[in-house]
Amino acid sequence: MNRLYHVALSPYCRKVRLTLAEKKIEVELVEERYWEQNPEFLRRNPAGRVPILKIDGKTLAESQAICEYLDETHPEPQLIPRKPDARFEVRRLCAWFDDKFNAEVTRKIMGERVWKKIQRKGYPDSKTVKEGLSAIKFHLDYMGWLLEQRRWLAGDVMTLADFTAAAHLSCLDYVSDVDWNRSETVRDWYAKIKSRPAFRSLLADQVPGLPPAPQYTELDF
Amino acid sequence: MNRLYHVALSPYCRKVRLTLAEKKIEVELVEERYWEQNPEFLRRNPAGRVPILKIDGKTLAESQAICEYLDETHPEPQLIPRKPDARFEVRRLCAWFDDKFNAEVTRKIMGERVWKKIQRKGYPDSKTVKEGLSAIKFHLDYMGWLLEQRRWLAGDVMTLADFTAAAHLSCLDYVSDVDWNRSETVRDWYAKIKSRPAFRSLLADQVPGLPPAPQYTELDF
Repeated sequence: MNRLYHVALSPYCRKVRLTLAEKKIEVELVEERYWEQNPEFLRRNPAGRVPILKIDGKTLAESQAICEYLDETHPEPQLIPRKPDARFEVRRLCAWFDDKFNAEVTRKIMGERVWKKIQRKGYPDSKTVKEGLSAIKFHLDYMGWLLEQRRWLAGDVMTLADFTAAAHLSCLDYVSDVDWNRSETVRDWYAKIKSRPAFRSLLADQVPGLPPAPQYTELDF
Repeated sequence: MNRLYHVALSPYCRKVRLTLAEKKIEVELVEERYWEQNPEFLRRNPAGRVPILKIDGKTLAESQAICEYLDETHPEPQLIPRKPDARFEVRRLCAWFDDKFNAEVTRKIMGERVWKKIQRKGYPDSKTVKEGLSAIKFHLDYMGWLLEQRRWLAGDVMTLADFTAAAHLSCLDYVSDVDWNRSETVRDWYAKIKSRPAFRSLLADQVPGLPPAPQYTELDF
């Protein structure tokens, strides 16, 4: 049986979960409190973090590398298109969300509001949360600008770029920190992604002591 | 003419420069002081950072996405092998260095010692520098462990993983912060990379007010 070591509110784990589900690859989810630095876990992954996917007799780490591998070994449905230009745009946007959006938004908001609480590292720093809430506006506007020219973020088909963005936004939506009124275009895009069967497992997540915001599971939000 | 907007001591720019040079793609280098947020530059790249590559009539951002694009459009010599397993390992290690090594080592040392100086943001914080100098030991040991099993970092051929690691280490070597005595295996690997024609442009870099350490240009260090 394939197995994914993950934590529920990690955008990197969610990106891999969405990819696995879209490709109908069955996987057993195992919650891994990686910050406790369990030696057994560190043996599996010297980088000391999730997601870790056990598949085909291999142990894989790093979410983008895992998703590229899955797209090559299970090409249906394809999440990274064939032409170099289109592949570039997908990868550019994956990096945009996993790197820039994460540093400016996800880490600031989730780090303060969620991870400090779960890892018992003290109280949220409101200045950092405010910076994240301010930066997300620019990113929603950028997404809106892209989506006015294209049906999906990287072009006219749904790709890994959409899953990457949705992975980050869905974590923020769990704690109700996305202003969906800012852009109707972005809200429509998220509603399309959220209604996919691949998204169901994410919507069923429940973190002990941190119930999801009411709109989190609503398909009409 | 192709054009690369870059800064000399950015590992991400160096990774693209090595890839371009290895593939013998000619490019004009344009230094871009991206932190000054020149509006003309921000128009080229809304992410507001380098490298930016102008090639084939397109403007490309994000170093890993650029290198994947170059490997697909200019496949000789190939820097990402064909088989999914091997491609995974290359990408895993690229992420290891660009993400984990960068956060734990490059950003701490170069951020404090170099970027604060160049960007006039004050004095280095010695605690952060020390954390970086301590963390690099673990990474050099991990590289040594990989290289005892393989000729190159990701397997028996040189790949983008080697260029990614060398891009980070060469920046640290410029300011003399790599202890090459820690692992003979790693030193031999770096000597092989450093003697490639693709490396020459990096060794010629001179940052005003910050001359390179004496061993930086030596092929026998």
